[in-house]
Amino acid sequence: MATETLKYMCHFSVIFVFYFSSFYCQQFSIQFQQPSACGVNSYFDIASLSCVKCGPNQVSSKSGLACECQTGFRVLVSNGAYITCQRCLGANQGVTQDGFGCIRCPGSIGESGKCQCPGGSVLVERDENGNPLNEALCRACSATEPAFSAPDLTGNRCIRCEDSFINSSQSCDCGASNTLAGGICLPPNSLPTTVSANVIFNQLALSVSSAWFSNFMYSSAAACLLFSNRTACQSLGNMCVMNMHSSSTINNDACGLYNTIYRATAAQGSSQDISFWRTNLPWLYYGEQLGSASRVLQNEPLPVGFSFKGPQKNTKIELQAAVYSLCPDTRTRKMSAFTFGTDYRQSCVLSVSELLAGFPEPLFYDVFLVIQRSQEEKRLLAVPLLNLNQQFNGQFTNQGANMNNWYLTRRLMLVDSLSGREKSLMSSPRVIRVASDIKIRFQLVPNTQKGQVYTPLMTVAYSDVLVTDPSTQSVSVSFSMEYTMEQEEARIKTDIALGVLGGMAVVHSLLKTASWKRRIASPLVDLQTIMKFLVFYAGDLANVFFIITVGTGLYWLIFFKAQLFVSVLLPSPAQEERFVVYVGCAFALKTVQFLHKLFVQLSVDIFFIDWERPRSKASKLVEGSGESKCHATPVSIWRTYFVANEWNEIQTIRKISPTFQVMAVLFFLEVVGFSNLALRDPSSILSRSPEEYTPPYSLILRYGLASTMWLCIGLTQRIFFTVFHERFVEDKIRQFVDLCSISNISVLLLSHRCFGYYIHGRSVHGHADTNMDEMNTNLKREAENLCGQRGLLPNSDTQTFQISITNRLRTQYDRIIEPISRRSGPSRLVDASANPCEQSTKAYHTMNRFLGSVIDHGHREMDYIVKDKLLFERLIGMEFIEPLDKSIFYNDESHSFSDVLFYGNEGVLLIFDTLFFCVVDLANQNYILAAVLTYLQQLAFRVIRNSLGRRNLVGKTLVDKRFLI
Amino acid sequence: MATETLKYMCHFSVIFVFYFSSFYCQQFSIQFQQPSACGVNSYFDIASLSCVKCGPNQVSSKSGLACECQTGFRVLVSNGAYITCQRCLGANQGVTQDGFGCIRCPGSIGESGKCQCPGGSVLVERDENGNPLNEALCRACSATEPAFSAPDLTGNRCIRCEDSFINSSQSCDCGASNTLAGGICLPPNSLPTTVSANVIFNQLALSVSSAWFSNFMYSSAAACLLFSNRTACQSLGNMCVMNMHSSSTINNDACGLYNTIYRATAAQGSSQDISFWRTNLPWLYYGEQLGSASRVLQNEPLPVGFSFKGPQKNTKIELQAAVYSLCPDTRTRKMSAFTFGTDYRQSCVLSVSELLAGFPEPLFYDVFLVIQRSQEEKRLLAVPLLNLNQQFNGQFTNQGANMNNWYLTRRLMLVDSLSGREKSLMSSPRVIRVASDIKIRFQLVPNTQKGQVYTPLMTVAYSDVLVTDPSTQSVSVSFSMEYTMEQEEARIKTDIALGVLGGMAVVHSLLKTASWKRRIASPLVDLQTIMKFLVFYAGDLANVFFIITVGTGLYWLIFFKAQLFVSVLLPSPAQEERFVVYVGCAFALKTVQFLHKLFVQLSVDIFFIDWERPRSKASKLVEGSGESKCHATPVSIWRTYFVANEWNEIQTIRKISPTFQVMAVLFFLEVVGFSNLALRDPSSILSRSPEEYTPPYSLILRYGLASTMWLCIGLTQRIFFTVFHERFVEDKIRQFVDLCSISNISVLLLSHRCFGYYIHGRSVHGHADTNMDEMNTNLKREAENLCGQRGLLPNSDTQTFQISITNRLRTQYDRIIEPISRRSGPSRLVDASANPCEQSTKAYHTMNRFLGSVIDHGHREMDYIVKDKLLFERLIGMEFIEPLDKSIFYNDESHSFSDVLFYGNEGVLLIFDTLFFCVVDLANQNYILAAVLTYLQQLAFRVIRNSLGRRNLVGKTLVDKRFLI
Repeated sequence: MATETLKYMCHFSVIFVFYFSSFYCQQFSIQFQQPSACGVNSYFDIASLSCVKCGPNQVSSKSGLACECQTGFRVLVSNGAYITCQRCLGANQGVTQDGFGCIRCPGSIGESGKCQCPGGSVLVERDENGNPLNEALCRACSATEPAFSAPDLTGNRCIRCEDSFINSSQSCDCGASNTLAGGICLPPNSLPTTVSANVIFNQLALSVSSAWFSNFMYSSAAACLLFSNRTACQSLGNMCVMNMHSSSTINNDACGLYNTIYRATAAQGSSQDISFWRTNLPWLYYGEQLGSASRVLQNEPLPVGFSFKGPQKNTKIELQAAVYSLCPDTRTRKMSAFTFGTDYRQSCVLSVSELLAGFPEPLFYDVFLVIQRSQEEKRLLAVPLLNLNQQFNGQFTNQGANMNNWYLTRRLMLVDSLSGREKSLMSSPRVIRVASDIKIRFQLVPNTQKGQVYTPLMTVAYSDVLVTDPSTQSVSVSFSMEYTMEQEEARIKTDIALGVLGGMAVVHSLLKTASWKRRIASPLVDLQTIMKFLVFYAGDLANVFFIITVGTGLYWLIFFKAQLFVSVLLPSPAQEERFVVYVGCAFALKTVQFLHKLFVQLSVDIFFIDWERPRSKASKLVEGSGESKCHATPVSIWRTYFVANEWNEIQTIRKISPTFQVMAVLFFLEVVGFSNLALRDPSSILSRSPEEYTPPYSLILRYGLASTMWLCIGLTQRIFFTVFHERFVEDKIRQFVDLCSISNISVLLLSHRCFGYYIHGRSVHGHADTNMDEMNTNLKREAENLCGQRGLLPNSDTQTFQISITNRLRTQYDRIIEPISRRSGPSRLVDASANPCEQSTKAYHTMNRFLGSVIDHGHREMDYIVKDKLLFERLIGMEFIEPLDKSIFYNDESHSFSDVLFYGNEGVLLIFDTLFFCVVDLANQNYILAAVLTYLQQLAFRVIRNSLGRRNLVGKTLVDKRFLI
Repeated sequence: MATETLKYMCHFSVIFVFYFSSFYCQQFSIQFQQPSACGVNSYFDIASLSCVKCGPNQVSSKSGLACECQTGFRVLVSNGAYITCQRCLGANQGVTQDGFGCIRCPGSIGESGKCQCPGGSVLVERDENGNPLNEALCRACSATEPAFSAPDLTGNRCIRCEDSFINSSQSCDCGASNTLAGGICLPPNSLPTTVSANVIFNQLALSVSSAWFSNFMYSSAAACLLFSNRTACQSLGNMCVMNMHSSSTINNDACGLYNTIYRATAAQGSSQDISFWRTNLPWLYYGEQLGSASRVLQNEPLPVGFSFKGPQKNTKIELQAAVYSLCPDTRTRKMSAFTFGTDYRQSCVLSVSELLAGFPEPLFYDVFLVIQRSQEEKRLLAVPLLNLNQQFNGQFTNQGANMNNWYLTRRLMLVDSLSGREKSLMSSPRVIRVASDIKIRFQLVPNTQKGQVYTPLMTVAYSDVLVTDPSTQSVSVSFSMEYTMEQEEARIKTDIALGVLGGMAVVHSLLKTASWKRRIASPLVDLQTIMKFLVFYAGDLANVFFIITVGTGLYWLIFFKAQLFVSVLLPSPAQEERFVVYVGCAFALKTVQFLHKLFVQLSVDIFFIDWERPRSKASKLVEGSGESKCHATPVSIWRTYFVANEWNEIQTIRKISPTFQVMAVLFFLEVVGFSNLALRDPSSILSRSPEEYTPPYSLILRYGLASTMWLCIGLTQRIFFTVFHERFVEDKIRQFVDLCSISNISVLLLSHRCFGYYIHGRSVHGHADTNMDEMNTNLKREAENLCGQRGLLPNSDTQTFQISITNRLRTQYDRIIEPISRRSGPSRLVDASANPCEQSTKAYHTMNRFLGSVIDHGHREMDYIVKDKLLFERLIGMEFIEPLDKSIFYNDESHSFSDVLFYGNEGVLLIFDTLFFCVVDLANQNYILAAVLTYLQQLAFRVIRNSLGRRNLVGKTLVDKRFLI
């Protein structure tokens, strides 16, 4: 006893930390020697970690850590550390069992140098008092009643033999009429005697004659059937599991035997009131009827409510994950992953040698859910298993998507390194089978408000691995938890919303097209009209898609993350595809709209009307007379330059700061950690430690989060700029209008042929082209309200107008502008002689005079009236009255001329930026990349708008581009 | 045999997946019952998973999974599933050993209902042929020669007794003169007989009387000493390890016994030529001499070269990490972490129940390095262990930092749940000891070029855990690999660089101060001068710190990541502190410089000189006379407004785009993945899969990476803007100069009292205040080179000058400007009557005239000369000639007036931004946050510079702020 315990505690291991090459040796270094390399005549000395030669006539023991006497030698002296050996001389002398003596053998001497007795006999070397005999004896064990004895494992004593022998033959001899199988004696029975002990590894197309099956399958089945031996029944059941629950009507395999016994023992009744669970047998199948799977999985919900928050919070899934998952991971990560609603995915690559060492025998699991009925009483709910490798007559039964064709089973196995052993149970397996993909899926009951789920389903797929070189081979295994719900209803709702809003979009686009037709004063429905309609429709449809996708994203974000009782679960990645397509549509259509807007803005007609008239006649000394004559001094062009320069600068200002927007979104998503809300779990915590498990992202949640964040920050900025910045710091648009007034310059903008905007900038002081004294005086007078009001109409302040001009006015405008616009066009032959530059300055002056006189009601046939726009006109963005006779100037306090600038199209730009950001993110799942690209996109379009806008300005107003800086 | 194997394969487990509460039950649910709860009269039926009552006279077996007969009953019938029992009637009838029969006992009947024999006797129930006897026999085993027999473990046979009995007493009876301890018989010997079997758990201040120590310590020691029993010696060594290698001179504890034996066996010589390794004993100590630790650790480098790259790449550390690290983790992560140079840190929390289940007995490890000498020959190098819990006479020996006081040891243990068992070896432990912190440290040999390291040191700290409730208790454990090198030399080099550059900075700052003194024309050294010097010095010192820190960061980045053979290892986090302080200094000093620059820029004196003279006299009808008289028409102020507006706009433009800079840096660091280069491992791969192990960041590498990235992208942008953008798109500074020329306005800038800049903008056409026709003609003429050149001197193009003005000129300037500057100051009593506005416009006109005439050489006493600056003057930024008599205008083609704008200070701004970014990152280790904050910082300073600059412009030039938009 003592030495055995001593041995138990002297374990220690030699560990080799590093492998590197060298040419040199150290003070504290020793020779590398392994116990296995010591050879037959040496042993490995655990004290000095080296091979030491054994004494004479000695060989190393099986473990290699000590010496023992050679065959035929006995131990003469032993003192713990060393032994000496002596040959047993004399005829028929063998070594005693304890190895310390020599004895004459009654019969033969075995290979070990010890005496050997025939079968059924025991070897006796000492008498009952322990005194050694001179000659060993062989005594036959009495097999019959009342002794019922047979030699024990060591062959030293006769002991009572196995029950099955006694029961079958009333003797320890099995007898001819009985069958001896797997070490037990079986009477004749109904089981087929030819059983198939082959295990078929489908993936390798390999059939292995399994030592385990051939040794024990028949005996287990027979013992189960005949003796109702529970252990034998479980063993048979496990063999059926090792056989992938597969059966065939041709061969008698493990599952076939199981089914035979299942049918034969129908009379015994069932366990636990479950009809599929036969008494004494393990429960393996959920019946053989087709369609039973859907009944089991979807007939009746579990009556429990999962809830994410509040006092009844119930998300705990205390899964003993270490059991299922072959992958190692920290406890925290595994624990935190087993929260209801958290998509958990874990996969890893395991080396075959690790598996062989860790799973010398297969372990089988019956999986149950625990239902806590009251404080004391718990019930277990059986979790069905879908074995993807299951076959019936060589056909896979469970690999289709149709639940009605499935055969559900029970009992899971992780690693089977037993059935693949061919020759003996001690040999290493030729093939191992690994549960390479285990998945537990929960499905939510439709329309539940209490977080009810159906019976969960566990799906397993096994992989067969042909063992060739365990240390280099590897298997990849994975484990996942999925939570799904039926998404059909949500899809229908989305479709309805899409239909309704799409219809409204058609109406809206038609209205816009009609308005556009009126504004270009063209009644014909031509190809261009249809194109315009399509472009308008693209914009409206983009908004519809945007509303629906943001709504959907926000819906999932709020309802999934904030729900108390679980009533929704996230769509699976496959179900998200449709959503991604919607986002793609929204983005593509919005791009069309944005580019169209950009194009319209870049081709707008603009003219600066200078009201300044020459102040006086410049004096010119008439030669010879001595008298002076005054001529008109030229009106300085610098005010026009100033206004044009400012107009150029406000082209790309926006109601928000786009770069700040990008930065703020990035800050909240990635620094504050809002992006963690897009993870597929119920947690709504913003910061996660890197030690915790991180579930995969949900695309819908990412989109919902990003778009909401983008819109919220945009709105906040908008409010800040409107309420604070434009009121207290600066309002570029108002500054521009003021500048027009101070500089005595009006701006005429024609965005359509017969529609546009007019900014009235006639100075109230008559002159603006003056020196600093007068400017200061003017400004001061105006500040003190000493002069008239700035408005177009007397005693009004309204400086900005939407204008609907008559066709006649437009035609006249076009006629005057012609030399200017031709300048940029191809040169024609007709006026090759004329100086184009002079012509266009002349046109400029003509235009200036003409427009000035029109505003001053100087042309009767091109007169105009000023009126307010109707509320409804404002709402639908269309003028009811056609300007047939007189042009119409609509008062417009809201500076809607900014519609031809970025400023007036903030909505389109913001949604375009949002969609751009989201689309980049959906493609890469990287908010930082999305932010950088969005910034570049904004930059690029700003540069394009600025440079092309400047070119348009130069072309339309004749201001030299050197002054637009 | 058969049934045993059968049992071996019928294992399966019932697993409980979920715990949740419910009120309801399912079709496939069963009662939850545990084997332990079945009670004495029931067994747990593995087939139906429920408790089943045993038959009459039966009780459940020890495992609870079957029934057996009550004490005093025998098995009458047994058929695998069920048994029936019958009482053994009659006087002194006992149940046979096999349980199937009744037999008369020779002596007493034991508690189990079976016969019992006195000590030294065996029970015989069957004869040699297996036939049952009527009455059992007790036979005494013959203890003396030649039998040397004693009962075996089951008490059924006499077998040869333990060697130590025979050796000590020539009998199986130990005898009075010998000692029976731990199951072996020991002759009298030199070991003290009173040994201390108490294990002291220091952290709990608890002394536990250990069953293991009291049973086996003395016997192991004695067997080791007397019989040289290697197993016993190892066992004693392990006990010493369990005792934390601690010894004391008072008690005889395990290590004390070990040392006694160590000294007593000195004559036996040592193993493997290592003096501390006594033959037959395990090697536990590196001698008792003080200072031996440093000799072992630093005397001799390992002769191997680690190399990160190339054909001789050698970073593999094939550490069997699973052995050391109690924390579970995936193979990939563990493997990838064991690469030379990768700082590995792993920690986790383990539950005590897991530890108890996983480590029923302690495992001990002797740690060696494998050195591959040639293809075949390997040598093992012993790795010394520093046990932080080691004590000598109650004092901790290894917890100080001084290596010379350490006692190095060998043999590591992970979990000891054995020594804490108090009553018996089967009881559960009261205390367990866990190796809670294991650290392997490699130190690089100084100045190695071949990646040589010293012998690595393994440090271990054990934690004591009092076991109260294993399922809720937990222990946190950690494992780490560290790579260090001596940083003293690097520190000295840094200090030298700091000293040298700091000295140069002093000189440079003195020069700048001198230059400044000259420019403000003040010879006195007053407090202001010293303050100025300090500010200049702050800027220069900031540059010094910046150069040194960027250099250091880049050095580590390049030398650590790119080295072929390992010659440097990263400084440890503690060693990085000094570096962080340097960065902090650089940032603080740079901030001072930047704020100073900003302040100077915001208080610069500026005046726009309008060259335009009234074109003619405006006519005025003299009342009553009918004759017209011509007066001067006012010169339009709008050109001045235009120029001022442009000046206002170029105040904050820069040579690069700062927002693009932030975005680009963020893109490269976080999207492309350059930030992965800052991880503490030798890999230089940019993208890492999340499955891989991620080492911690190195602050130095983060800084080096960020600053390099920032500077590189800044340089790239600078080149792009200089080479492409300013040449082909637009150059704002040149545009401004051109604008001055076209608008006939000169700009005078005085950044110091007597130093500043002059932009000559006199129009070559004489007049600029004209209409579009003339402007276009002028522009055209100039384009066709039909008019004079723009320069100040005739026939020169130089429009921009640095000016050194005389004190007299400045005094005059100040006198004229006084009413203007007073306007913004507090009002004074003296001129309360005068209109301040009128006064300042008057001053404006006076100044305009005065400066115009100065430039036109109209004032003899304030004349100036134009000359080129000497090269050396340019270099040191100081004028050699003092402008005593005449002002000096230095030609300046390089537009150095931009020094008073952001544009001319790109270097300072870029370095400030870089440092700001890096400091935020060092504080938070988050590049995204750093980017966002840097953007906000740039935005804030741009807004401040713009608005305050505008206010300064308004104050100095009298241009109304409404025109600066």
